[in-house]
Amino acid sequence: MSIFNFSAGPAVLPKEVLKRAAEEMLDWHGSGMSVMEMSHRGAEFIQIAETAEADLRELMSVGDDYEILFLQGGAIGENAIVPMNLLGDKRTIDFINTGEWSKKSIKEAKKYAQVNVAASSEDQNFTYVPKRDGWKLSDNAAYVHVCTNETIGGVEYHWTPDVGSTPLVADMSSHILSRPVDVSKYGVIYGGAQKNVGPAGLTLVIVRKDLLDRALAITPSAFHWKEQADADSMLNTPPTYAIYIAGLVFKWLLAQGGLAAIEQKNVAKAKLLYDTLDASSFYSNPVRKEDRSRMNVPFKLCDDALDAAFLKGAHERGLLQLKGHRSVGGMRASIYNAMPIEGVQALVDYLREFERTHG
Amino acid sequence: MSIFNFSAGPAVLPKEVLKRAAEEMLDWHGSGMSVMEMSHRGAEFIQIAETAEADLRELMSVGDDYEILFLQGGAIGENAIVPMNLLGDKRTIDFINTGEWSKKSIKEAKKYAQVNVAASSEDQNFTYVPKRDGWKLSDNAAYVHVCTNETIGGVEYHWTPDVGSTPLVADMSSHILSRPVDVSKYGVIYGGAQKNVGPAGLTLVIVRKDLLDRALAITPSAFHWKEQADADSMLNTPPTYAIYIAGLVFKWLLAQGGLAAIEQKNVAKAKLLYDTLDASSFYSNPVRKEDRSRMNVPFKLCDDALDAAFLKGAHERGLLQLKGHRSVGGMRASIYNAMPIEGVQALVDYLREFERTHG
Repeated sequence: MSIFNFSAGPAVLPKEVLKRAAEEMLDWHGSGMSVMEMSHRGAEFIQIAETAEADLRELMSVGDDYEILFLQGGAIGENAIVPMNLLGDKRTIDFINTGEWSKKSIKEAKKYAQVNVAASSEDQNFTYVPKRDGWKLSDNAAYVHVCTNETIGGVEYHWTPDVGSTPLVADMSSHILSRPVDVSKYGVIYGGAQKNVGPAGLTLVIVRKDLLDRALAITPSAFHWKEQADADSMLNTPPTYAIYIAGLVFKWLLAQGGLAAIEQKNVAKAKLLYDTLDASSFYSNPVRKEDRSRMNVPFKLCDDALDAAFLKGAHERGLLQLKGHRSVGGMRASIYNAMPIEGVQALVDYLREFERTHG
Repeated sequence: MSIFNFSAGPAVLPKEVLKRAAEEMLDWHGSGMSVMEMSHRGAEFIQIAETAEADLRELMSVGDDYEILFLQGGAIGENAIVPMNLLGDKRTIDFINTGEWSKKSIKEAKKYAQVNVAASSEDQNFTYVPKRDGWKLSDNAAYVHVCTNETIGGVEYHWTPDVGSTPLVADMSSHILSRPVDVSKYGVIYGGAQKNVGPAGLTLVIVRKDLLDRALAITPSAFHWKEQADADSMLNTPPTYAIYIAGLVFKWLLAQGGLAAIEQKNVAKAKLLYDTLDASSFYSNPVRKEDRSRMNVPFKLCDDALDAAFLKGAHERGLLQLKGHRSVGGMRASIYNAMPIEGVQALVDYLREFERTHG
């Protein structure tokens, strides 16, 4: 049976990428080796890593004044690694709290810094992004931290905050590569790869070079951005196979027409799903319309006693991993780059069918 | 051309494992998903992770008083993560310095602790393991750290140190699973996966449960052993595909007869190679015989002006990645579990041929 996988991450990957990976598994380009078996310092893997970095740089238009690092530990690792690398002689970090992932970042940062929550949408259960003019930024923050797409709450920034000369740091884990981003507006962009980039276990960090001199003495070498930048992300053995898969995803994105083209597809997919939810009183999504995520669409049935039947019917139709995050319940459809519109259409058809039969 | 890959890591994997991974790439066991696409909290991946842990526990006879963690960051990451997790209210760590990897661990630990080098083989260029009766241990060390196989120097412990009630911590990255180990003699065993276990990006930590209450407040949650143990290594998204491949390697090892059986093969492979080197004055290995590594065999030609010709001829014969580590030069043949004896025989044949034509 063909399936559509709505997992929030690890998540669906392009079929073309998986086919290529299967074909090359035992012998990459006549080398006689699997990519998994290659020394990270050998000519073959160096070529793979350099191509991946160059393609990512092209996709996101990353300037020469930024380093691209391929690291490990995911966004939860970075929640500690970012303050370790950026605090320098400052003691305060400004956070915008838009939900579960912001809260995780805040909690972890408190191990290393004073946290100022400059704005929060907790007053309305994290269903919107606080407008910039209400942010109460500190005078002397090391940086301002935002989570530009809340994977659990389904809230996304559709604008870029201006925070003056203070570095803006963004956890973009769950919408990176879904649309063009003006990298030059950010000090640091980071994300776990397992949503829109590739396999779990790879972490992307894009950091402006002038911010590389601020690490605390306690920063582990493996996660020290300056040391990793100086070593081309090979101070320790990088997650080579994950970088290879990410590189195949970058090539796939370039073949799709790049981020402006994929954004159009993502807009169309999200519109189809939200329009269906909004047209019904049987389903609901709580997020303010202008702040809704194009990637993660949480929704509830009018009666949660129907949840189990909904999920069972979805599974029978090959619509997988629709169960909402355990912290919020309900449903969630993650519709990343690799989800074709046919998958969203199949979900929409099922939503209407289930409402007819259970509404 | 069939090749033999002598890389020190990432390194050769069993062909059966790679074939299985290729077959299952687009559809694991009828799930319709690649393992890379599975939510780490879904039933399919939970089964993969639990089976991998159970098989590793069986292979190494890990007792119930130990946790097995699947983490990220490699051994260089652990060089910081181990002291963060184990120092508690102590300030000193005892190290045995047997070469490059010991030195890396020592350098990193100095960020967090007082380091006492209790014994060192630096006096003879790290070509032996200091005997236990010469170790000058501290009275109040948090733990004693050893690197039981030096990947660069080719030095291996063929005995288990007794350090009394102080926890013994071992970096076993490059010989874990090559032979039976009495886990109960260690407080912590850790290693990067990319030699004998699976792909780069996965780190194994086996830790005695009574040592889980000693983490410093600065320990990042993603690398906090207690928090990860409580979350079954899923406090953050684990490197799922690497865990899957490691699980296939564990099944392969069990089918080989387990660690006692694989040890016999490793003994035979190492003997074949060392005997050939020792029988010739054209080649040399500097390590004291009783401390030679079965996994990593560094050797030099009598005239390093011949190195380039040796490597070129090796490459033409499909004998790959024999160049020694850049810090020591010469050659290195890594002959991990997945290297068949036919590969060592092909290398030995070439060693003799090259000596005949260039000696």
